[in-house]
Amino acid sequence: MKGSFSAETRVGREGVTVTLDDLKEKMANFAEERDWDQFHSPRNLLLALVGEVGELSEIFQWKGEVPRGLPDWQEQEKLHLGEELSDVLLYLIRLSDVCGIDLGKAALRKLELNAQKYPVHLCKGSSQKYYQIHNSKDDVPQNGV
Amino acid sequence: MKGSFSAETRVGREGVTVTLDDLKEKMANFAEERDWDQFHSPRNLLLALVGEVGELSEIFQWKGEVPRGLPDWQEQEKLHLGEELSDVLLYLIRLSDVCGIDLGKAALRKLELNAQKYPVHLCKGSSQKYYQIHNSKDDVPQNGV
Repeated sequence: MKGSFSAETRVGREGVTVTLDDLKEKMANFAEERDWDQFHSPRNLLLALVGEVGELSEIFQWKGEVPRGLPDWQEQEKLHLGEELSDVLLYLIRLSDVCGIDLGKAALRKLELNAQKYPVHLCKGSSQKYYQIHNSKDDVPQNGV
Repeated sequence: MKGSFSAETRVGREGVTVTLDDLKEKMANFAEERDWDQFHSPRNLLLALVGEVGELSEIFQWKGEVPRGLPDWQEQEKLHLGEELSDVLLYLIRLSDVCGIDLGKAALRKLELNAQKYPVHLCKGSSQKYYQIHNSKDDVPQNGV
């Protein structure tokens, strides 16, 4: 697999640009080659994802607040962090795939829903939830975008 | 935002193909427009992600085993599932971004590491962990790909 990117991976402005479809395909091939489809039921994958979120949380658990960009972290720690973030991502993509959900399409739709739930003029600089900022009937977001 | 895809989103074989960089950029813009960068510290985002994993788990928690493709689920349930999967994805991408981790690059590297940890000839059809299948010194995967 090393050095070989499928048609779904392309070179963007800052180097390799990775698509969700590409990772989905790579995960599906990985499982198929190993005859692991038998283990990749939705709930097995969800629990695997939960396990990886635990490993991700472990990295941060005793550190107190950490500044953005992690200026004081060793390269090895950042590498480890990248691995745990990736494990969550890869199981999330695989879970979406076996559930028949188009994750990229769903994410774009969710961003639109979020923009409706949190209009700039109502939530700028505020961490309130959407049901706290929408105080008139006209501001209630519509479902089913 | 509706209907407008940046240069990082392109039309693939099956419709819109979404890149991690595109979602990263959209999330960064979303936060900046709302002056939410002040809330997006690494650990705040990690806890937000954990919260969303909880909401994702809720969807599956009392169902028992569910078959791949979710053939018996209502469209509304699948839509909801897509939203929760997306929430996890979007916080994961945002967390990676504020930590300065290139998630796409990290994910490709992790796939290579996984291929080394789980060679097809040693793990085909088996759900054993890598330290169980590597029983000779020669089979131990090398770190630092």
